[in-house]
Amino acid sequence: MTDPRQSALDYAHTHRGRFLEELKQLLAIPSISTSPTYKNNMQQASQWVADHLGSMQMTGVKVYPPESHPIVYAEWLGAGSEAPTVLIYGHYDVQPADPLDEWTTPPFEPTERNHNLYARGASDMKGQVMATFKAVEAIMRTSTLPVNVKFVIEGEEEVGSPHLADFIREHQKLLACDVCLNTDTGMLAPDKPTITYALRGLAYFELHLYGASQDLHSGLYGGVVHNPAQVLCELIAGMHDEQGQVTLPGFYDKVLPLDEEERVELSRLPLDERFYLGQTGVPQLWGEKGYTPVERIGARPTLEVNGIYSGFIEEGAKTVLPAFAMAKISTRLVPNQEPAEVELQLREYLENHAPPTVRWELINMIGGPASLSDRNSPAIKALSSAQRMVWGVPPLFKREGGSVPVVTQLQEILGVSSVNTGFGLPDDHLHGPNEKLHLPTWYKGIDTLIHFLFNLRQP
Amino acid sequence: MTDPRQSALDYAHTHRGRFLEELKQLLAIPSISTSPTYKNNMQQASQWVADHLGSMQMTGVKVYPPESHPIVYAEWLGAGSEAPTVLIYGHYDVQPADPLDEWTTPPFEPTERNHNLYARGASDMKGQVMATFKAVEAIMRTSTLPVNVKFVIEGEEEVGSPHLADFIREHQKLLACDVCLNTDTGMLAPDKPTITYALRGLAYFELHLYGASQDLHSGLYGGVVHNPAQVLCELIAGMHDEQGQVTLPGFYDKVLPLDEEERVELSRLPLDERFYLGQTGVPQLWGEKGYTPVERIGARPTLEVNGIYSGFIEEGAKTVLPAFAMAKISTRLVPNQEPAEVELQLREYLENHAPPTVRWELINMIGGPASLSDRNSPAIKALSSAQRMVWGVPPLFKREGGSVPVVTQLQEILGVSSVNTGFGLPDDHLHGPNEKLHLPTWYKGIDTLIHFLFNLRQP
Repeated sequence: MTDPRQSALDYAHTHRGRFLEELKQLLAIPSISTSPTYKNNMQQASQWVADHLGSMQMTGVKVYPPESHPIVYAEWLGAGSEAPTVLIYGHYDVQPADPLDEWTTPPFEPTERNHNLYARGASDMKGQVMATFKAVEAIMRTSTLPVNVKFVIEGEEEVGSPHLADFIREHQKLLACDVCLNTDTGMLAPDKPTITYALRGLAYFELHLYGASQDLHSGLYGGVVHNPAQVLCELIAGMHDEQGQVTLPGFYDKVLPLDEEERVELSRLPLDERFYLGQTGVPQLWGEKGYTPVERIGARPTLEVNGIYSGFIEEGAKTVLPAFAMAKISTRLVPNQEPAEVELQLREYLENHAPPTVRWELINMIGGPASLSDRNSPAIKALSSAQRMVWGVPPLFKREGGSVPVVTQLQEILGVSSVNTGFGLPDDHLHGPNEKLHLPTWYKGIDTLIHFLFNLRQP
Repeated sequence: MTDPRQSALDYAHTHRGRFLEELKQLLAIPSISTSPTYKNNMQQASQWVADHLGSMQMTGVKVYPPESHPIVYAEWLGAGSEAPTVLIYGHYDVQPADPLDEWTTPPFEPTERNHNLYARGASDMKGQVMATFKAVEAIMRTSTLPVNVKFVIEGEEEVGSPHLADFIREHQKLLACDVCLNTDTGMLAPDKPTITYALRGLAYFELHLYGASQDLHSGLYGGVVHNPAQVLCELIAGMHDEQGQVTLPGFYDKVLPLDEEERVELSRLPLDERFYLGQTGVPQLWGEKGYTPVERIGARPTLEVNGIYSGFIEEGAKTVLPAFAMAKISTRLVPNQEPAEVELQLREYLENHAPPTVRWELINMIGGPASLSDRNSPAIKALSSAQRMVWGVPPLFKREGGSVPVVTQLQEILGVSSVNTGFGLPDDHLHGPNEKLHLPTWYKGIDTLIHFLFNLRQP
């Protein structure tokens, strides 16, 4: 009897040409979620995904129309209630393609060059979504899926998934599962399969300062009124100390420290100072003293000014003493910080430091805690072992500095952990011109996901 | 023989009704210089002024067409080269009238109510210009002007007099004079004639900070890159110490200190803490310790943030780590500070404090020194004595916190001091809806100017 795992791999290898053509079909649809101009294309892409899932013998295929862009759901529960159920997350929407004149070939005419497929969404993340589809198809066409699968493919990831939490909350029974597979994080190099086991949380605020009842003439009043722009600068300047640490009272109290083993592991990642200097173009790096760049990004909380405004910012010179100043300030959180507690800490800081010469107001915009997966969970072991089978090396374990809303939402609403991986590379130009997908890595990704699905049942 | 002074005063009193009608004619022309919409009205107003000066038997009336709005010139040099020559400055342009629905009567339909004349420009400064015209007319119709006069009435004051310096530079011989009368500053109360003997200078800069080569994701890079918005806040926060003093190196070195006599005089002005709290609506005043509000505004230099910008400032939450941050920063200067030196001081501060994690650039936008008139000069004594004759009390001597470009330009280019006064009141709503002119004060102003012109020759 043939090994079903090998049969699925053989099928995937034989059909690579067709897989690529199908991916090109999906990539040709400009499903840009950030602009209403592409509303029809969003419908077209969601229908394409639904049809494709249907053609794979998925059941319960349904296009859920949220307020804006549809969520496509499909499932196959034939493995029975004994078997684990994997929720496979993805998104079919893409970023805008501008500046168009910087693309070598048009963003929605997928083109192969040097083992890469160039198109908007090739790496982020239509290619990744198709890898999950093709892995499932390969197994279903050659034997039987060893686990139950549920697909949730949304169309609003690039605009912050504004309706996804409500969808999950309203469909908890439908979405019930043991683990989520999220292929929306990448790998560090073509020979370095990667698992992202930690994501930072987020607490985002807007701080408003009010001075005089209206803008004043800076000559006639400069010297008697505390300028809200100056006060804002003073408050923000005080939010970091000379060690680069955040000064909000109690900010580090609950921060889970890194243990030595994990620090050693993180130090192996190819993410040293030179890497970040090259990526950013800054003359010199900065950050909390006592930690490496990768530790500061993945395992330490930070506070950033995302925007700041006051007074006259057009061309020219207006001698105004502004009545109002505003900053958008966000903190990236690590386990076990709580966004609600950080808000209280920021309020306490402001109460302690805002002078009586201005009035202030703090608005809490977004909050979500960090996530940290157990690197020894069965699902992560299944993926890690699959990556080792395909690449011949164990994966790198990476902490990511960003926040992925769906990971937090699934954890908070369904209590489900996500396994975060993907087959995109650092030079894929996500969100930029000439986005591409490295095809040899993509094919390895499909193989990896086949192994993963089998490993979940037969570790 | 009748006293020529008394004859002129009698004439002015007899013709008040006509003076008012003529002022209304000028006020009815919407000569708004800030918008090209009113270009024809600007022509119309400049022609009205030229015709009016011509009707007064002025000679050499000429409308100088600068690049945008005309400057009207006229002179009468019949007093001979022995007599002093007074340059009378004014402007016929006005601020926009919006919001229109807050006006009780339309801004360009001058209307009398309760001894006030309501119209845009009534106080700032068509009323003041007409007071100078009518004083000169009253003397010329009843005897002979004791001094030579030259009128320069411009049309761009409300947009910062962008072409006036060039005009003065190119017409130095035409404009040669002994003193300038500028009625564009006001008085502190209807019973308090006022002379403004000091104006602050200005040095205006734009500071640019550059971090990464493009905006970054605040999650993926927060912790390794020094946020330019944060650096900008730190730099600005450091520009004041806890005493409210500016920390630029050497900033106070050349500041002319206030002597005790002047402090006592300034303390008599009705400009106490309560006044500024009421004017501004701030919860508490602020400023350099050791000085009263009026001293801080008039006699001490200050540094203000006029505008600040970085990153995402639209509605919503974008997790960007900005690549760029900008601030508009200006200093108000007092004698004997030099704008060029202040630029060097600011550069030195930035060189000492800007961290090596960002690049910076400083642009010098505008610079002009402060002006301080000798309160014992013949012209100020002539005005002071005229005010005492009309009001029965000596004038208040006021330092003003703002800068008046023409005063600085005349000083720098022609070496001529200005006598700054005017008959507008603090509640005239300059630049706002329902601007008005207090007519009893205006009539007193005409009388004052008649006395002033005589006093210049017969102190």
